[in-house]
Amino acid sequence: MENETMRIANWYGGKDFRIERVPKPRIKDDEVLIRVKAVSICGTELHAYTGKSKRREEIHGLPLVMGHEFSGEVVEAGKNVKEISVGDRVAVNPLITCGKCEQCITGKTNICKKIKMIGLHVDGAFAEYVPVIGGNCYKIPDTMSFEEASLMEPCSVGLHAVNVSQIELGDDVVVIGDGPIGLMALQAAKLAGAARIFVVGHHNYRLDLAKKLGADEVINEREENAVKKVMELTDGRGVDVVLEAVGTQKAVQQGIDMANKGKTVTVIGLLEKSMELNMLNVTVKELRIQGSYGYTKKEFGSSVKLASKNKINLKQMITHIFPLEEIQKGFEILAQKKNAIKVVIKP
Amino acid sequence: MENETMRIANWYGGKDFRIERVPKPRIKDDEVLIRVKAVSICGTELHAYTGKSKRREEIHGLPLVMGHEFSGEVVEAGKNVKEISVGDRVAVNPLITCGKCEQCITGKTNICKKIKMIGLHVDGAFAEYVPVIGGNCYKIPDTMSFEEASLMEPCSVGLHAVNVSQIELGDDVVVIGDGPIGLMALQAAKLAGAARIFVVGHHNYRLDLAKKLGADEVINEREENAVKKVMELTDGRGVDVVLEAVGTQKAVQQGIDMANKGKTVTVIGLLEKSMELNMLNVTVKELRIQGSYGYTKKEFGSSVKLASKNKINLKQMITHIFPLEEIQKGFEILAQKKNAIKVVIKP
Amino acid sequence: MENETMRIANWYGGKDFRIERVPKPRIKDDEVLIRVKAVSICGTELHAYTGKSKRREEIHGLPLVMGHEFSGEVVEAGKNVKEISVGDRVAVNPLITCGKCEQCITGKTNICKKIKMIGLHVDGAFAEYVPVIGGNCYKIPDTMSFEEASLMEPCSVGLHAVNVSQIELGDDVVVIGDGPIGLMALQAAKLAGAARIFVVGHHNYRLDLAKKLGADEVINEREENAVKKVMELTDGRGVDVVLEAVGTQKAVQQGIDMANKGKTVTVIGLLEKSMELNMLNVTVKELRIQGSYGYTKKEFGSSVKLASKNKINLKQMITHIFPLEEIQKGFEILAQKKNAIKVVIKP
Amino acid sequence: MENETMRIANWYGGKDFRIERVPKPRIKDDEVLIRVKAVSICGTELHAYTGKSKRREEIHGLPLVMGHEFSGEVVEAGKNVKEISVGDRVAVNPLITCGKCEQCITGKTNICKKIKMIGLHVDGAFAEYVPVIGGNCYKIPDTMSFEEASLMEPCSVGLHAVNVSQIELGDDVVVIGDGPIGLMALQAAKLAGAARIFVVGHHNYRLDLAKKLGADEVINEREENAVKKVMELTDGRGVDVVLEAVGTQKAVQQGIDMANKGKTVTVIGLLEKSMELNMLNVTVKELRIQGSYGYTKKEFGSSVKLASKNKINLKQMITHIFPLEEIQKGFEILAQKKNAIKVVIKP
Repeated sequence: MENETMRIANWYGGKDFRIERVPKPRIKDDEVLIRVKAVSICGTELHAYTGKSKRREEIHGLPLVMGHEFSGEVVEAGKNVKEISVGDRVAVNPLITCGKCEQCITGKTNICKKIKMIGLHVDGAFAEYVPVIGGNCYKIPDTMSFEEASLMEPCSVGLHAVNVSQIELGDDVVVIGDGPIGLMALQAAKLAGAARIFVVGHHNYRLDLAKKLGADEVINEREENAVKKVMELTDGRGVDVVLEAVGTQKAVQQGIDMANKGKTVTVIGLLEKSMELNMLNVTVKELRIQGSYGYTKKEFGSSVKLASKNKINLKQMITHIFPLEEIQKGFEILAQKKNAIKVVIKP
Repeated sequence: MENETMRIANWYGGKDFRIERVPKPRIKDDEVLIRVKAVSICGTELHAYTGKSKRREEIHGLPLVMGHEFSGEVVEAGKNVKEISVGDRVAVNPLITCGKCEQCITGKTNICKKIKMIGLHVDGAFAEYVPVIGGNCYKIPDTMSFEEASLMEPCSVGLHAVNVSQIELGDDVVVIGDGPIGLMALQAAKLAGAARIFVVGHHNYRLDLAKKLGADEVINEREENAVKKVMELTDGRGVDVVLEAVGTQKAVQQGIDMANKGKTVTVIGLLEKSMELNMLNVTVKELRIQGSYGYTKKEFGSSVKLASKNKINLKQMITHIFPLEEIQKGFEILAQKKNAIKVVIKP
Repeated sequence: MENETMRIANWYGGKDFRIERVPKPRIKDDEVLIRVKAVSICGTELHAYTGKSKRREEIHGLPLVMGHEFSGEVVEAGKNVKEISVGDRVAVNPLITCGKCEQCITGKTNICKKIKMIGLHVDGAFAEYVPVIGGNCYKIPDTMSFEEASLMEPCSVGLHAVNVSQIELGDDVVVIGDGPIGLMALQAAKLAGAARIFVVGHHNYRLDLAKKLGADEVINEREENAVKKVMELTDGRGVDVVLEAVGTQKAVQQGIDMANKGKTVTVIGLLEKSMELNMLNVTVKELRIQGSYGYTKKEFGSSVKLASKNKINLKQMITHIFPLEEIQKGFEILAQKKNAIKVVIKP
Repeated sequence: MENETMRIANWYGGKDFRIERVPKPRIKDDEVLIRVKAVSICGTELHAYTGKSKRREEIHGLPLVMGHEFSGEVVEAGKNVKEISVGDRVAVNPLITCGKCEQCITGKTNICKKIKMIGLHVDGAFAEYVPVIGGNCYKIPDTMSFEEASLMEPCSVGLHAVNVSQIELGDDVVVIGDGPIGLMALQAAKLAGAARIFVVGHHNYRLDLAKKLGADEVINEREENAVKKVMELTDGRGVDVVLEAVGTQKAVQQGIDMANKGKTVTVIGLLEKSMELNMLNVTVKELRIQGSYGYTKKEFGSSVKLASKNKINLKQMITHIFPLEEIQKGFEILAQKKNAIKVVIKP
């Protein structure tokens, strides 16, 4: 038992993944051990891989086992764990929160002062096993595959963005961004009762999927002016909610310009660079620019609940599946954006 | 022109409807004349017919032309009307609000201090023609029949109840009441992203329809204890939102007893009688008992928008259609509750 | 050390308090030991003393050391305690919450599914020492006496009631009830920007204090009809928020009848008995009847912060101070309501 | 009667005011005629005078009678006016709203699609008489001078900013900007229950007034780093609400940087220029950047109500009073910022 090992895909920065053997992790009394069955690659991990973002190097240092969008089977449970049992199939909330800071005690667990994420602050799920706090595991129904369950994390990001946006029944919504988060936000906005949802992007295969997932109109902004098009579609009125899921100056500005008076632009994309913005419309149209970061504990549970009732289409978002050994291939396909949306790794 | 007349179904109290000829109404500068194409009978009108409620006699006196759930064609338009044109097919918001009182200027037009309703304070739509303020008319698409459009009013009532309830994505919701308002509230709650909706009623044909319209479970409270059943379905947790659409002591008490801590019981039903309530749970569980009355101007527009996008099923709610001359037959069928849900009259 | 003892006032039901010696409590790693300096008597404890409520007997059994409104000095600190140090003067939040249930993780710690209170579920502060979780202690400034600090608990109850009521700047507010909670709610409502606050009660000495604490008008409902008076004072408009701090049928009904359309009646009083209510106004005026229970962790901290800035007058609410040995005298004075408002015991 | 004239201060752009005689205005049925008693100069008018902003030239053209912060006596009333009578002393809400657009019917009258302002879209109050819609007049008590009443308009701007900011009891608030709007926002934030308010500015005489009006700390940002100072004052926590009342890139950035996680930065200042912003904190700290524009009808009424109860100090904000003939002197003193805060003109 003591000598048991497991395979991991250790990341040494850039494109350097190495399949290694390390001791199988041991759990604490409030933890369970998860036999990871599926991990999907997150956009922020792709940015680490391509060198676009250095956040992982700064926060954790190298090497690191990435992987925070995952599901698996409980194979061991600490003695204080009550929420979940050995044998349960689960989706895992990778956020570890303190429960004591001002944000936690007011329900904003997503911005806990001491928040940590599996696969970022501690080693993650591109591995056979991961120890997880029992309360972070959510049982999934037999009808949900492990691959689908690995998408509960980005699904929660979309759900949270929609929650903070306070969509009202009958609203018109624009999602800027056709990546996985944009497509999840689209689905959540649809669930929240939007009358019409327009998706702005520039990959036709993703915009096609957006249509299948419920977008009323898709706008390829390489082919037409997104603000102008949205104003046309709304008879000059503008929309009630903009969900910005790109993280660029252009997208934020578009959001400000296409929102109707008194409405909301939610920014999900990480705005890593300073940007030149014309904010006059923020005051004159009295807009709300709302940051959206992660998801709360409650929202992760809600995502699982909604997906379990088939209210979110996860299957169509998975375009590629690879074994752990081919993890780099998975990242590469995403990097090239050749028809890939979510790439799932199976350790 | 001066001498033109129209047919109306004049109501002399109780079951006494008389088809009469009266002068065709003339419009003011901000009004349009509607050629009524479909009017559906409201539950409160049924209560007037059966003598259960004396509200109409008290507010307007007899005789009265009832009818406030209606649609039609614009056949004449006052010179100040800009919103709508002759020839337009429209659903009509029957609420006339002052625009100046404290409630109106804060957006709560549904509880305007001087609110009036067509068919209650002034003669209504069981008639060939009705004059209506231009801004109260909403264009409907060709794909929506006049019969369906007549249901925009009760649909707005359901929508408003769901709006004031502030359903969150993933919530569990109970609708108490299987009448038209309950079924509309069910559909609106589904639109608002509830994970599960349970409908409590005691008419099997209506509960069957509730299932078709999206209820996850239906509970015939003549056959089982509704509170107990809901607690079972939620593993003892209780629900997030109760939409009470009956208006009885029993229903309100059930709502209080089946709501989870910190949650909401919305009462749509008119609570005309004093009632014995155990309110301990209101404080101990810190519940919100929220009255819901009518709908705002914005919400009527939202209903039309959502129904135009086929997000609300109106067709299945219409069980009977009669010409104006057979209006009493329509009321009688409703009174007997023999498989009737919405009965539409075509003047 | 092992053999150290302390004095407690042990309660054997009814009016039977006994001063006893028991072992001094020992603390866990996350706890501190508080040398209790002041405990004020709560209205619910008075109800236990007079036999009006049997809640304590049911929840804990006899004997019980009551006392949950208290302050003291930290004399020992467990090794995991970081928030507070030996020597600190503190007000204590007596609520022990699980941090894991649905309510806790959404910030509603006041209705934690497993909530416990010091002095109710476990022995309390009518004792020389009490062990308390470190995070439940709040440092008080030197300018605040221990007696005042013991009122942080009822102050938090008033603050929470005002928070859930969502008072807007310029609102008219009625507080029904001239007891300590009513007077705290009055002060919190004033802090929240109400334009006018009317207090309804029936003890002139308390209504006089209400005036000193900022009430614009006081209404002795033994001398005049409270609903009628409030309607007069508001030119027939009714008020924006009613804070019901009595817990009787009459008070709830008054609240429903004196609220303006679309407004809020917050019930703080424990509604232990079933009551006959006319709820028609709840639907027709579209009121919100909002339960208010305890206070959140955040709110306890806010109370301390506001009182530390002298924004709440605590001094004037303390009418009597007794040593532990005379605890029964303290309860008796409260029971007779002879000019007593808050009675503080000093162990 | 027909030939009656009145004096006005006509503005021909820049520093060119001319005292002229024009026909006394005639009122419509829903209007009253106001004998203007006091008009205070707004910061946006100062910007027109100094040439910093060309908004007035663009919207109305020259010449224009400016003046929108005013009070006076009703000397004539149209036959449909019910709210107010000849002889009443009134403060005037200068915003004219349509009552029909989407924003108006949802209570957001401040961003009415067709909003007009007296003194900007139509001639204003630097004149002996102005016609005003009856419903825009608010009676003031005898204890309020006309000079004070002329400040109801900027007071409403501060109130609205605080309302959209949703300050909670016990919050820490920063006001950036020591001009009249900043000082009004300070007073409104205090009314709303902030525990501490810090004011950032760079005019010592204004910061001194801020202290008198209730600021807990004032920060002259020419002397110290405002963000650093605020972080120190809050033990590194940051504040709950920032009220930005300057309208510069620097102020917005400071707000973003000094807000605590999950909190709000309200921008009142008109952000006329594009600005380089680092928005990373908006997503990572999940901030809300909330535009604030004008005030609603309800809020103007609330301001009058609160000021009538002496809850807002207007007197200390008035530093200079001039007759109409010396209007230019008034503008000039403001332009030089020599100890001037509000300058009131008496036509």
